[in-house]
Amino acid sequence: MIIHLTRDATAKDKEDILDRIQAAGLGYEDLHSTTGTVLIGVLGDTSTVEEGYFLELSGVDKVIRISRPYKLVSREFSSASKTVFAGDLAIGGDNLVVMAGPCALENEAQVEAIARYVSGLGIAVMRGGAYKPRTSPYAFQGLGLGGLKLLAAMREKYKLKIVTEATGLHRHMTAGGGREEKTVLENVIEYADIIQVGARSMKAYGFLQELAMLTKDSKKPILLKRGESSTIKDFLLAAEYLVANGNPNVILCLRGIRAFEEEKFQRYTADIGAIPVLKKESNLPVFFDPSHATGYRTNVYHLSMAAVAAGADGLIIETHNDPAHALCDGEQCVTEAQLKKIKIDAEKIRALLLGR
Amino acid sequence: MIIHLTRDATAKDKEDILDRIQAAGLGYEDLHSTTGTVLIGVLGDTSTVEEGYFLELSGVDKVIRISRPYKLVSREFSSASKTVFAGDLAIGGDNLVVMAGPCALENEAQVEAIARYVSGLGIAVMRGGAYKPRTSPYAFQGLGLGGLKLLAAMREKYKLKIVTEATGLHRHMTAGGGREEKTVLENVIEYADIIQVGARSMKAYGFLQELAMLTKDSKKPILLKRGESSTIKDFLLAAEYLVANGNPNVILCLRGIRAFEEEKFQRYTADIGAIPVLKKESNLPVFFDPSHATGYRTNVYHLSMAAVAAGADGLIIETHNDPAHALCDGEQCVTEAQLKKIKIDAEKIRALLLGR
Amino acid sequence: MIIHLTRDATAKDKEDILDRIQAAGLGYEDLHSTTGTVLIGVLGDTSTVEEGYFLELSGVDKVIRISRPYKLVSREFSSASKTVFAGDLAIGGDNLVVMAGPCALENEAQVEAIARYVSGLGIAVMRGGAYKPRTSPYAFQGLGLGGLKLLAAMREKYKLKIVTEATGLHRHMTAGGGREEKTVLENVIEYADIIQVGARSMKAYGFLQELAMLTKDSKKPILLKRGESSTIKDFLLAAEYLVANGNPNVILCLRGIRAFEEEKFQRYTADIGAIPVLKKESNLPVFFDPSHATGYRTNVYHLSMAAVAAGADGLIIETHNDPAHALCDGEQCVTEAQLKKIKIDAEKIRALLLGR
Amino acid sequence: MIIHLTRDATAKDKEDILDRIQAAGLGYEDLHSTTGTVLIGVLGDTSTVEEGYFLELSGVDKVIRISRPYKLVSREFSSASKTVFAGDLAIGGDNLVVMAGPCALENEAQVEAIARYVSGLGIAVMRGGAYKPRTSPYAFQGLGLGGLKLLAAMREKYKLKIVTEATGLHRHMTAGGGREEKTVLENVIEYADIIQVGARSMKAYGFLQELAMLTKDSKKPILLKRGESSTIKDFLLAAEYLVANGNPNVILCLRGIRAFEEEKFQRYTADIGAIPVLKKESNLPVFFDPSHATGYRTNVYHLSMAAVAAGADGLIIETHNDPAHALCDGEQCVTEAQLKKIKIDAEKIRALLLGR
Repeated sequence: MIIHLTRDATAKDKEDILDRIQAAGLGYEDLHSTTGTVLIGVLGDTSTVEEGYFLELSGVDKVIRISRPYKLVSREFSSASKTVFAGDLAIGGDNLVVMAGPCALENEAQVEAIARYVSGLGIAVMRGGAYKPRTSPYAFQGLGLGGLKLLAAMREKYKLKIVTEATGLHRHMTAGGGREEKTVLENVIEYADIIQVGARSMKAYGFLQELAMLTKDSKKPILLKRGESSTIKDFLLAAEYLVANGNPNVILCLRGIRAFEEEKFQRYTADIGAIPVLKKESNLPVFFDPSHATGYRTNVYHLSMAAVAAGADGLIIETHNDPAHALCDGEQCVTEAQLKKIKIDAEKIRALLLGR
Repeated sequence: MIIHLTRDATAKDKEDILDRIQAAGLGYEDLHSTTGTVLIGVLGDTSTVEEGYFLELSGVDKVIRISRPYKLVSREFSSASKTVFAGDLAIGGDNLVVMAGPCALENEAQVEAIARYVSGLGIAVMRGGAYKPRTSPYAFQGLGLGGLKLLAAMREKYKLKIVTEATGLHRHMTAGGGREEKTVLENVIEYADIIQVGARSMKAYGFLQELAMLTKDSKKPILLKRGESSTIKDFLLAAEYLVANGNPNVILCLRGIRAFEEEKFQRYTADIGAIPVLKKESNLPVFFDPSHATGYRTNVYHLSMAAVAAGADGLIIETHNDPAHALCDGEQCVTEAQLKKIKIDAEKIRALLLGR
Repeated sequence: MIIHLTRDATAKDKEDILDRIQAAGLGYEDLHSTTGTVLIGVLGDTSTVEEGYFLELSGVDKVIRISRPYKLVSREFSSASKTVFAGDLAIGGDNLVVMAGPCALENEAQVEAIARYVSGLGIAVMRGGAYKPRTSPYAFQGLGLGGLKLLAAMREKYKLKIVTEATGLHRHMTAGGGREEKTVLENVIEYADIIQVGARSMKAYGFLQELAMLTKDSKKPILLKRGESSTIKDFLLAAEYLVANGNPNVILCLRGIRAFEEEKFQRYTADIGAIPVLKKESNLPVFFDPSHATGYRTNVYHLSMAAVAAGADGLIIETHNDPAHALCDGEQCVTEAQLKKIKIDAEKIRALLLGR
Repeated sequence: MIIHLTRDATAKDKEDILDRIQAAGLGYEDLHSTTGTVLIGVLGDTSTVEEGYFLELSGVDKVIRISRPYKLVSREFSSASKTVFAGDLAIGGDNLVVMAGPCALENEAQVEAIARYVSGLGIAVMRGGAYKPRTSPYAFQGLGLGGLKLLAAMREKYKLKIVTEATGLHRHMTAGGGREEKTVLENVIEYADIIQVGARSMKAYGFLQELAMLTKDSKKPILLKRGESSTIKDFLLAAEYLVANGNPNVILCLRGIRAFEEEKFQRYTADIGAIPVLKKESNLPVFFDPSHATGYRTNVYHLSMAAVAAGADGLIIETHNDPAHALCDGEQCVTEAQLKKIKIDAEKIRALLLGR
């Protein structure tokens, strides 16, 4: 880290800056310039120091970071790509992992129908929301624990892994108006093979800490979605929260960002360009959610192909046995036939990129 | 709500659509067109029905909402501006309410020094973060319960109201590595006069429900910040969550949105244009946070004036007795002298707008 | 088009609305509703009428467009995909067209070196900027006419087609401080096989009209880049300007949009999600510029693959024989070896998608 | 400017970097670090050198600019605020300058009616578009030269200054299908007192050069609007183009940026936060266009007050004698009564800020 002083920085300013460097347990050195430009080099591990820590001092013009603010999840720290395991399923290696299922779990017949064809297509992981974060307080909020139990039954019957979202630390309201006994997080950790953190929770740092600590021993994988307006830096810092608090098994998942979309055409802007960036910057597996990234069924195939071609390690896709009657996000659910084509062609593109 | 059918919608499609309308307890009517355009008018209270509920059906081209998706917080529902009371303090009426204090509570001396001058300037509400949501897992995370107690002491000593953020439903980690006994939300509800919901939590719907239900009886005011990329519609729906779940005392607070800022100049884009929009669309008081909206102390005065001139009912401002040594966001904290000028000039502009 | 009246619309308001409908040469009909909702259906070709034309009238609440504001470039108007020809080169059919070359033409040796390997790789079209729109008035502004002549020589020698940008209707300043005899547009039309319109000029409507009219007879293809913050609708309306004024041979080209990128990682947000949208909405060929969409050489391969996988008809790529010494945008230029790999793998993906 | 080398930079890399520094006529010095970090300080005037010039070299990790890329328009270069004169009218001093008029000039009666009340309100400058850049090729494109003549007549009759947009270097198509004799730019320069450059033309660098050179002698003021997605840096570089090419009389004008607006509420995001930023960064006068920044008449008053309260030197407002029948952007035109209130209250706020 290099600190550039303003032209009018006083001796007292400089003293304050050096004090603060030492208070952080770091060393320093003057970088002499013949033109009077005053630069201070900060020595030691600055990965856990924010720029603002110095920037707010009088006399500081710029703080230039040489090392990264996140450490454990960076390639700089560990250059080898990390493989995350959900039981015997390797995520992040050469094979492409597809996760698919409905937006919301609705009832036994729906869950069973979808599990059957998902499994039949050779897809290893079933997704399905038991707890649904809905923009409107009046929309369907999910089956809750009952939904998790349906998923668990499918796991047994069809040998699927289960991924589902933990929407928070609250206790879910049941249809009858009561509350579930355990928190959403506790229930999801108990039932899921892979715990999904939604875009809305990416910056819920207390929740991330809690999640990491509750999975410290099991080290169950966490699929962390990018917040819809979070920077790459903040996304990686959220992953760092999980790893620093005890669970290194994090999967990064892109799902579209908020730009200036026309809702009629796309609900979000698919940030495919972030795939190679994340692959280079971090050692974690990178997934893509083509369903939320576009919002329309007709584009899901194209974005799935694009994400895999850009280097994604996997896809998480919404599918429904009867999209026209889905209780949630039916417009973006693909049919069984569409899902089949996506899986086959995505694997061909993956093989092509691997030179097979 | 009007449903426009596609040219090739079949009789079966139309039947499905009518079924779904009835399933939602609504009525319908055909809107005949001589040119074969097929429109269905949906009758009844559609405020709690999402467009997607119909849009996902086969044969539906467009769903046009006439009424609003939020109801309780809209002017359509109740046209009079709502005044929210924090004890005897009226928020949302003609008088401008200023809230000020440090980003983070740091220690007794700092809290006392700031409380003294905040109170001395005639500012009614002191802010201060006891629980700090930080982007980096390695940054200072707040004093926790100890901070709340410091605030409570200031309330007694200086007759200030207290506003502080409830960052979630987790239990705070203490410096010693243990956990606080109660959740952050429980502690904040106990100590604060006004409960702040941060931008990061605006879409934490389970948390919002919990908060509304825990304050159902006390009806303590909630200052709800806009998520940095949330739409006006989603912001009002988040307020609707609070009101629909039992607490009508919501204050809307803008704090800058994410656009394409250059960090060197502004950290966020101050969404001053949303002030008149919210005042027209909703009956709730509208506040503005000039500190986060810009990120730099030198712009806080200008944005405070602008927000009040645009019709804001109040401001929430970061101030510090020694900005250069603040543990958090020092760059955006104003000094006592700057705060004084802001308060005086903001009140003059308010008076001018009210024709006094 | 359907007009929804406000609840308090008067008889006079309605009369004004009907007058305006007739003034536009359109018909109307009342759409009766039993609940008093008042809707007016506008009959006739409304594709050239803006919503604002009615929206600004008193008594109008909403204007709902059923048909599109652009016509000639839409699939609704002509559903077959258009093939654009640059001489004998078909653009927009099954074969993938790659265009490559330097950001700026620098000197004979550079142009020749690049032309040689571009041609050697079987790439049909060479790009190269003779006129460079630069953000800074102090940056290199291009070789001008001399550059065009170098390109023309390469066309002869290597049987390449030439694409280059027409930056405006001004006359270029020569190195000596004088002006070229003809305008930039005239020179580019004379020398290029395909005329590029840059992102900055997408909304220069007078320029678009002039360009379309000057190429009315030759019908030379125009590669139209999307403005960095233009909507899909505005992009297609810009194409409509060209077609409506006489030149139907338009190629749409995406090149990254402005969102909230971190410059360190990506200069723009690659809008790959817009590729399937444009392919569905319009009948024109859709290209992608991976170089500008990311800004960094190391990501160009990944974005090229992604764009083709998402359905792009072609790519326009920056390449340089010596990127480290490029006078313009060297960070995003790929080397010959990288370009070769892009071409080979992109063609494989295209073949795979076509089921070959 | 400081160049930070990568860890693996070779001696050859460093040599290339030093060569390039010298090629730009600059000096250098090594900034020694005890930890092996290699920094090179670039000496001399680097204001006209782009970061990319070095960044693209092998071995360069970061380029840190200490001075600004724009020079002539910066406070660093000349700290005194610049006053621009349109004849005897001072723009940029203590008095607030209001410009008002219709979006488009429509006919003599309309122009006369508006000129009469604009003048009657003591407004010094009348705006009005003779050439209209329209998103749709089918929309009304303006009266052209005839409109300019109407404006000129109003200047005589009501002693108003005239501001109008020069949309480009093309020759306007007349209603009869012919072309005007002179270019739009030439006509506007001839008739206007202040030449407006629209947001769409802010990056039309050839046009900016031409404009600056054609007004080199007259030094007629130029009102330069910010491009809807341009950064502050690019905005100031566009102003630099004008000043560097001979016309120092530039007025910066903000008009709303593109973020993720809901069209129903706001057409653009009013970038009021940029006002204090520009005032600090540049010595040029800063104006605000509240009409385009919101898109709706009902918000224009609030944004006008906000802009002035944030420090704007003036406003440019759309007004119409009969907004319901305006040919262009009627939704955002204020009435005479609204304009009157804006002018009176804006002047009061200005006086209040000046401590009068």
